[in-house]
Amino acid sequence: MKYSVIGTGAVGGFYGSKLANAGFDVEFLLHSDYQYVKENGLKVLSCNGDFYLKSPKVFSSTEKMSKSDVVLVGLKSVNQELLYKILPPLLKDNTLVILIQNGIGLEEDLQKKFPNLYIAAGLAFICSQKKQPGVIEHLFYGSINLGNFSCKDKALFSNVLNDFVKVGIQAQEVEYYQARWKKAVWNMPFNGMTVVLNTTTDKLLKNPDTERLIYDQMKEVIDAAQILGVKGLDYSFADKMIEMTKEMIPYSPSMKLDYDFSRPMEVYYLYTRPISEARKAGFEMKKLSMLEAQLKFLG
Amino acid sequence: MKYSVIGTGAVGGFYGSKLANAGFDVEFLLHSDYQYVKENGLKVLSCNGDFYLKSPKVFSSTEKMSKSDVVLVGLKSVNQELLYKILPPLLKDNTLVILIQNGIGLEEDLQKKFPNLYIAAGLAFICSQKKQPGVIEHLFYGSINLGNFSCKDKALFSNVLNDFVKVGIQAQEVEYYQARWKKAVWNMPFNGMTVVLNTTTDKLLKNPDTERLIYDQMKEVIDAAQILGVKGLDYSFADKMIEMTKEMIPYSPSMKLDYDFSRPMEVYYLYTRPISEARKAGFEMKKLSMLEAQLKFLG
Repeated sequence: MKYSVIGTGAVGGFYGSKLANAGFDVEFLLHSDYQYVKENGLKVLSCNGDFYLKSPKVFSSTEKMSKSDVVLVGLKSVNQELLYKILPPLLKDNTLVILIQNGIGLEEDLQKKFPNLYIAAGLAFICSQKKQPGVIEHLFYGSINLGNFSCKDKALFSNVLNDFVKVGIQAQEVEYYQARWKKAVWNMPFNGMTVVLNTTTDKLLKNPDTERLIYDQMKEVIDAAQILGVKGLDYSFADKMIEMTKEMIPYSPSMKLDYDFSRPMEVYYLYTRPISEARKAGFEMKKLSMLEAQLKFLG
Repeated sequence: MKYSVIGTGAVGGFYGSKLANAGFDVEFLLHSDYQYVKENGLKVLSCNGDFYLKSPKVFSSTEKMSKSDVVLVGLKSVNQELLYKILPPLLKDNTLVILIQNGIGLEEDLQKKFPNLYIAAGLAFICSQKKQPGVIEHLFYGSINLGNFSCKDKALFSNVLNDFVKVGIQAQEVEYYQARWKKAVWNMPFNGMTVVLNTTTDKLLKNPDTERLIYDQMKEVIDAAQILGVKGLDYSFADKMIEMTKEMIPYSPSMKLDYDFSRPMEVYYLYTRPISEARKAGFEMKKLSMLEAQLKFLG
């Protein structure tokens, strides 16, 4: 199995490095850190044990990379057009592309551009960050759920799951659409609210007014998901997410970090797209569309 | 006619000074600026012509003031309990108290404390600010609408209107409940949104996303008002308010100034109260209750 990683950052870089460190054949695409990592390797400071790739196979362009069995996409969703452009050199007839990205509609859009491509959703539950060039810090969690979107090669899909498990990553198969919406239940309230109120998850839940608001926003996501046909998701999941977040350390979601570092925010796939899917089905996400407008104003 | 002003700030101070400057008998209550104004007088830098009260009748406590025919209340609504406490020394059998304050429910709450009191709403359309102790800057507008809440002495109410007009203030009678809600159509979106997004009215209307959001919030106020029985108010009023605001100079509403200067924000009467009145009538102001929660988090 030949793996490649597009977007060797805090998330793609972590999962790719775990595979490479265990001996899998992994090629990494890097952009700004290419020269540094080529010379100094890739260090992962992980809560499960640090490790170091002395000479990872790094590239500055997909045109120089091999065709892959599996492509892990860890790019931010702010520029999917770029993904569509750089993806082709990696593709064989039955390459599986796993989108480890946040939001709703990513698989559908990619499929439109590549009608025969095998696509899966990768839902990462991980807190990690790029500390500096070539250094990924993995703070906690680390599991990944894979949702099959259009991979007709069931063996290939299973092999990937097994590979992840083999290298010590908790991985399981989930139903892609339900999984994407379940993740949105957490993502939609917390990403935007920490940006707009310049705060962290813990403070939002310590204030009874914003706690109730976060809960109402979660219910809005659940209502939308139900209307869009997602089964097995009800308000009890919001309670669970609130309780889980209360037990986490004070946390800045990825959009908050993007905003703080003046990077573009993933407003389209995290907000605009799910809101518009729900709207088409006749449901108006009133609070989250307000949050979307506030983010677009700030962005 | 004996007038008194409680809260000699940018608004109460302006209207009271206009009356005093024209020769009316006006007593002013001051707090932090008492000593300064007693020694230096009260200066009004007005777009309609500056004027100066050399020796206004100023007091540091209502207990030293005379009983009044008319009390103009220019206090912020953040501490109405204080108003209830300091009001009695000014009251005769038929004193008219005019609440020149922002929000919904102010008259009702005051009436509960003083069941026989004559009360009116004063809706000021003015841009003014306290420049420094003893100096009020009046930038533009300046009219006041009076809504009779419980003044049984129609002659007294008319006299006040006439007095305002005599001293050059545009003043007219309005239906108090409709007028309060009409003012809320502008106040609820712009006060909170400029605080949460740290911006001014013009920028909110230049961005198409926040312009639409402001418009949706205005419609929410209008929906609430209609459900609460306000007549003669429809969505065309939102269009009017948006157009009017576009023609204004970049503007920071009073709540934005309060927030910037770390003063308490008038969240209760501007948000919590109207939202709860609408909720009791079965209408949920979804976007504005989200704004309320954001403000309570920041406040």
